[in-house]
Amino acid sequence: MPSRPFPLIQTVPVAEGTPEFVELKNSIVGEFVAKVPEELYIPQHFIDSPPKNVTAIPRQCGILTQQELDITENHDAAALAGLIRKRVLTAVAVATAFAKRAIIAHQVSCCLVEWFMDEAVQRARELDEYQASTGTTVGPLHGVPISLKEHMPLAGHYSSAGYVSTRVKDTQDCHMVAILRKLGAVFYCKTNQPQSLMHLETDSPYGRVLNPHNITLSAGGSTGGEAALIALRGSVLGIGTDIGGSIRCPSGFCGIYGFKPTSYMLPMHDFLHGGAAAELNILISAGPMCTSLRDIDLFMETILSQRPYLADPRLVRIPWTGLTTNVWTNPIKVGIMMDDGHIQPQPPVTRALDWAKARLESFKNFQVKPFKPYRTAEAIKLIRKAYWPDGGRGTKHHLQETGEPMFALTKHIIEDAEGPELTASEVHQQRLTRDQFRCDFARHWTEQDVDVVICPVFVGPACAHDTAFYWNYTAFWNYVDCPAAVVPTPVKALKKGAEDYAPSNKTPLSEECKHVRQLWAEGDFEGAPINLQIVARKYHDNELLGTLHTMLGEGFFSFA
Amino acid sequence: MPSRPFPLIQTVPVAEGTPEFVELKNSIVGEFVAKVPEELYIPQHFIDSPPKNVTAIPRQCGILTQQELDITENHDAAALAGLIRKRVLTAVAVATAFAKRAIIAHQVSCCLVEWFMDEAVQRARELDEYQASTGTTVGPLHGVPISLKEHMPLAGHYSSAGYVSTRVKDTQDCHMVAILRKLGAVFYCKTNQPQSLMHLETDSPYGRVLNPHNITLSAGGSTGGEAALIALRGSVLGIGTDIGGSIRCPSGFCGIYGFKPTSYMLPMHDFLHGGAAAELNILISAGPMCTSLRDIDLFMETILSQRPYLADPRLVRIPWTGLTTNVWTNPIKVGIMMDDGHIQPQPPVTRALDWAKARLESFKNFQVKPFKPYRTAEAIKLIRKAYWPDGGRGTKHHLQETGEPMFALTKHIIEDAEGPELTASEVHQQRLTRDQFRCDFARHWTEQDVDVVICPVFVGPACAHDTAFYWNYTAFWNYVDCPAAVVPTPVKALKKGAEDYAPSNKTPLSEECKHVRQLWAEGDFEGAPINLQIVARKYHDNELLGTLHTMLGEGFFSFA
Repeated sequence: MPSRPFPLIQTVPVAEGTPEFVELKNSIVGEFVAKVPEELYIPQHFIDSPPKNVTAIPRQCGILTQQELDITENHDAAALAGLIRKRVLTAVAVATAFAKRAIIAHQVSCCLVEWFMDEAVQRARELDEYQASTGTTVGPLHGVPISLKEHMPLAGHYSSAGYVSTRVKDTQDCHMVAILRKLGAVFYCKTNQPQSLMHLETDSPYGRVLNPHNITLSAGGSTGGEAALIALRGSVLGIGTDIGGSIRCPSGFCGIYGFKPTSYMLPMHDFLHGGAAAELNILISAGPMCTSLRDIDLFMETILSQRPYLADPRLVRIPWTGLTTNVWTNPIKVGIMMDDGHIQPQPPVTRALDWAKARLESFKNFQVKPFKPYRTAEAIKLIRKAYWPDGGRGTKHHLQETGEPMFALTKHIIEDAEGPELTASEVHQQRLTRDQFRCDFARHWTEQDVDVVICPVFVGPACAHDTAFYWNYTAFWNYVDCPAAVVPTPVKALKKGAEDYAPSNKTPLSEECKHVRQLWAEGDFEGAPINLQIVARKYHDNELLGTLHTMLGEGFFSFA
Repeated sequence: MPSRPFPLIQTVPVAEGTPEFVELKNSIVGEFVAKVPEELYIPQHFIDSPPKNVTAIPRQCGILTQQELDITENHDAAALAGLIRKRVLTAVAVATAFAKRAIIAHQVSCCLVEWFMDEAVQRARELDEYQASTGTTVGPLHGVPISLKEHMPLAGHYSSAGYVSTRVKDTQDCHMVAILRKLGAVFYCKTNQPQSLMHLETDSPYGRVLNPHNITLSAGGSTGGEAALIALRGSVLGIGTDIGGSIRCPSGFCGIYGFKPTSYMLPMHDFLHGGAAAELNILISAGPMCTSLRDIDLFMETILSQRPYLADPRLVRIPWTGLTTNVWTNPIKVGIMMDDGHIQPQPPVTRALDWAKARLESFKNFQVKPFKPYRTAEAIKLIRKAYWPDGGRGTKHHLQETGEPMFALTKHIIEDAEGPELTASEVHQQRLTRDQFRCDFARHWTEQDVDVVICPVFVGPACAHDTAFYWNYTAFWNYVDCPAAVVPTPVKALKKGAEDYAPSNKTPLSEECKHVRQLWAEGDFEGAPINLQIVARKYHDNELLGTLHTMLGEGFFSFA
């Protein structure tokens, strides 16, 4: 028995539910933390009086060796793969370092739901033995630790669709995981996700994922467990899913790289047992979350090299050229969308856009122009309905099964669609409306004559807990199914009161815009990183990466 | 006033409907035939005692000049485009020849619903003037006549969704037509389609499309008007749509080339006003119907060169390489599927498969192996339900609006799905079932280790009117969304009684198989051409064309 309770920083509690549900939830959490040896508990003082920014705790807590700090802090996945391939590092050393750091990260952010260091080290040992005996690696990800969002089935571990009642122990890897395993990846944890999987925060019955840069803020969602874990360098490569911003929002909130490809670019078979009815009209995209541009490319390249479309014919068959893509125009025309016409972003976001604009204007290969937003409010209204063709009945049913309480953000995201289940004809009408909107928006894009669009990731920096109401800047791109990456900038939110909306931006664009200004006035966003989003047309994923590569070459990302 | 009624061969009448409906229908047909000058009426004796095979009538009827016969009989679209470009032929001469021949073709097969020679000649004159004054063509299809299926909106003409009540005069071209017009195509007619668009025959209230090779047989459907018109060389290039066989079945029945690409390869925006609820789970494909392999390639290449995916983001963005595609293996592995495991094809089809097998075995670049069918009966049961998510209510509503009678084949295709409209959850379940089936079939294909599959187009040669009950050989490929071409063979059905099932094939595989044998015993299929179908994996459209090109190079198609 450990001498003290498992340490976990939490700032704002989540709703509890019925006594039976609390018991069930506690038994699940208990099973998880029972696997953690006490020597990996961080000192209690970090729990009793946590700093606002917890990113230094993994280094300060005294648990990691100098080599473990080096392994986890100084390399991306591509570098780790190279160091293992060249036998500079063993897979065991890498797996041990990331597994240890992941459980530390969990204690300061609540980013995990499962942790299995022993299994990871055993797998890493087999990989080292394979390499020692054959002189080769099993694949390009040999020994690379990869973190997985809870809902992605991994043989021998639990997955759920965002409700405790849907939690099952899986006997088989899903398609994506099977490919990663074959390529040499090492799995060591599963990460937290919000109730319903449909929040832009990560508040599950097991706890709320805190933003490592400022724990009074959300890590974003729904892939917030991954984002916090990666920001704390308990992982350098994880996988997210995105139907409204779930890769991009948390990547932006936590200051890491994230990429939502066009739908059906990456394998998702069995990602959710029972599927998602929302996909009748809005497809989910899977994509990488990581610490470098080249890891986005590595992930896409290695997965697509396996020709996953042969096993899952839903996947489109567009050859991956990624960072090596020859971009199709010179100069590259970049449209900057300063706001969506409906909600003006909070001041640090505008500052980041101004920074990006100035930097791009200084590059000879780029032409910068404004990009006019397009019917955002309408798109958001339409997508919010399209998410719930059953009127929210499935969600309520899954909650009732165990007495799980409905969280405020669940209520928020179903409320427009609550009511009787749609008929097939109504679903068909939604589809026609969506397709017409997509064609109309394509014409709008053509008229603007740009190759990519740069825009905010969110209405502001990472938001205060339970306030991620406005999905405009991410969900719009799901409604039109465009690939989008989020990338860091040097901009961070300043101390409360140190900046405000420019005088020229004093008039709110809408009621929602007014509400966002109120949230800005109330909040303390200090230290929150500001990422930007860069978007290409549907199926122009390669051109998007090619553009980012050109930006990298010009020094756009040289500020760290 | 003409001196005699408009001549039209019909063998089996279609149901009439209410007196009001008959009046409505007659006024529509009257408007159409009023445009036809009497000098283009074929001699009455062809109507009074038509031959079984009517393909020689356009040559025999005395209406076409020698040059018009040459233009219409001796060139494919690629050749016509070249002759116009080189100014060997004028666009006016070509438009005139095809317009005249089309209205002759109509009189022997009922293949048209609209005919507008004057407009076509006017357009051709403008194209000739453009070429004379600029020395260039407007595009690669400059002056090429293209026939359009009724439902495809063409500005200034009528379209319908398969019910007279849905007939409207369009003010705008649909996306595909707009592209073709821009590329230089000349439009001169719209072709007949069956009630509901969901028959593998073409029986509309305006009449029944006869098979030109044997008018006691169907031309197939739903794009049977195109197929008959092209078989009679009143067109060399038309466009079909296919959600269950509607390009492939009529192309096969009439002995021409047809290609159903993977879904969302070609533009279809506005093809059907109000869309098709069936597309919630089964997508329609558009594709060319023509007289040569290279015209399939020309059509795909010229359309896709316009990057239609920029205007309609539903379209996938796979570069077209077509006939020049380097096929990916040597030898090319061809699986021959002699039957679908459920319905043994009628004897001439088996004979054509044997012919293809022997021919391919004689080529050095090909390896021929058997291909095992996969759960066909189940797929057909599932697709028949997926076609009608509204339980057939829309169809009944559209018929009632004008008193249009429900045809036997409409009744046949909705009957499995008749009932209450599906709920969104039920549509979602259909989708999950479909996706799992597709993944299961993909595994089956991988296990068989083939590059392409050759199989029948239909359970037999062209069928007797009102007997196209079994969609197995085409609709299966819609259920799994594979690209498929149908191509001619030298095989034709013999005189009644001249051949029968092989002794080894005497036992029916199912009740449906028994019924197909009964239809064989009752029918007279003499002269019906036998095409075969060649299928590739989803999104392997280019590889399919590359394989066909290799077959062409080896002499597979050298039998004419």
